[in-house]
Amino acid sequence: MGPYRILVTNDDGMAAPGLRALVEVARQLGEVVVVAPDSPQSGQGHAITISDPLRLNKVEVFEGLEAYECSGTPVDCVKLAKHVILKNQVIDLCVSGINHGSNASINIIYSGTLSAAMEASLEGINSIGFSLLDYSWDADFRAAQHYIRPLMEHVLQNGVSECQLLNVNIPRLPLEKIKGVRVCRQADARWKENFVEATDPRGQKYYWLTGEFINEDLEDDTDIWALGNGYVSVVPSGHDLTNYRAIPTLKTLEQISLPQKI
Amino acid sequence: MGPYRILVTNDDGMAAPGLRALVEVARQLGEVVVVAPDSPQSGQGHAITISDPLRLNKVEVFEGLEAYECSGTPVDCVKLAKHVILKNQVIDLCVSGINHGSNASINIIYSGTLSAAMEASLEGINSIGFSLLDYSWDADFRAAQHYIRPLMEHVLQNGVSECQLLNVNIPRLPLEKIKGVRVCRQADARWKENFVEATDPRGQKYYWLTGEFINEDLEDDTDIWALGNGYVSVVPSGHDLTNYRAIPTLKTLEQISLPQKI
Repeated sequence: MGPYRILVTNDDGMAAPGLRALVEVARQLGEVVVVAPDSPQSGQGHAITISDPLRLNKVEVFEGLEAYECSGTPVDCVKLAKHVILKNQVIDLCVSGINHGSNASINIIYSGTLSAAMEASLEGINSIGFSLLDYSWDADFRAAQHYIRPLMEHVLQNGVSECQLLNVNIPRLPLEKIKGVRVCRQADARWKENFVEATDPRGQKYYWLTGEFINEDLEDDTDIWALGNGYVSVVPSGHDLTNYRAIPTLKTLEQISLPQKI
Repeated sequence: MGPYRILVTNDDGMAAPGLRALVEVARQLGEVVVVAPDSPQSGQGHAITISDPLRLNKVEVFEGLEAYECSGTPVDCVKLAKHVILKNQVIDLCVSGINHGSNASINIIYSGTLSAAMEASLEGINSIGFSLLDYSWDADFRAAQHYIRPLMEHVLQNGVSECQLLNVNIPRLPLEKIKGVRVCRQADARWKENFVEATDPRGQKYYWLTGEFINEDLEDDTDIWALGNGYVSVVPSGHDLTNYRAIPTLKTLEQISLPQKI
């Protein structure tokens, strides 16, 4: 038990090996509370639960640690942790993950892991989302843990200047092959969607979402470049979606004239 | 029928009066296809459906228009519209809404309406999310329609320079009280959360999310200022969450040294 209070969450639920790997590091640095969704919430983005009540269930999963399952989304988990479980006590750091799979580039928009961390940052809590570029359930998180610890220590000791959210991705490499840390920007990549069409036993069509990640942003200052070249990527992130460069060019919209009749 | 193809979507579903009001304007400007979720999806953010199949159901709701209900989130609707319904044909404009209630400031993060529009922008389609600052189901959308038409015309004719997504909010005022359009930035406001706690008939606690919108960003260049002063707000928006100012100050992270042992 240290002097710090650390909230640990994810989007894959309490049983995810990535969560266990993150808790192992966090409990070396402070007093840990774990709040995770009670069902998988990958791809939930910044969804919140408005029209349904939320449930919290205290569970014994990590010896000696307070842990709760929550019926909602990753963002709901963070809101409940802050306001119901911890009753607005100070939280020194929120860490989310370790996600099984990349949340680099545009994935930050779709990711429940990063949305949980972003929600904490909106609440004024320094936050880090961690993801390992390995989708398999039995991924090896040891190299990731070696980088996660000093990153958490740095943020606990120094804060995160000008921003309260870091998106950290770790390449799928053994520790000795990882070259270090790169602080970078989000690559302007995207998913090229596809749907697999099928027919159910009653003759009705249905569709499965699938897709291919496309990156044509090949500069060497992006997270995709860093990961492809053996670095851990750290992207300082935020919640301001304004495109400032577009404001002056769109000022002409202020001169629109209304139609006489709709 | 005009020369333009316009995709109309929302997060409140096919029966929402706001959708009807938007379709009325859109069909005056081009060939319209409507794709809406088959259940309310407010607060769904940028959620996508990964682990379930998606259904599409053609419906006769708008006389003479193609319309489909989709079993997924607003983002799923846009993906299905582009890739399955329209089979990757050119879409000249995607409009989402009219949302019943504000999506100004930080609401863009939580909003299904704006996430649908953002997804279209990620697909390279010029997109506008429209919201009226009136939560009631029988809100009066006439003043909104008067502004929506020239905004859509402007984007169809001129594009949206440097950005493909506009977040448009309309104050709850009669047409003659609205002072015009302001192109602005997203106010740095947030929700102060609260939970209402209750107990179910079996003695188990549950929680309802509630909250209060707090804005301490009082400059006159924000959407919240524009709306509070009688203007329609237009915020050019994007999907790059990088906090560029923080990158130089965080470069010290590149010097972290690894622990000898985890």
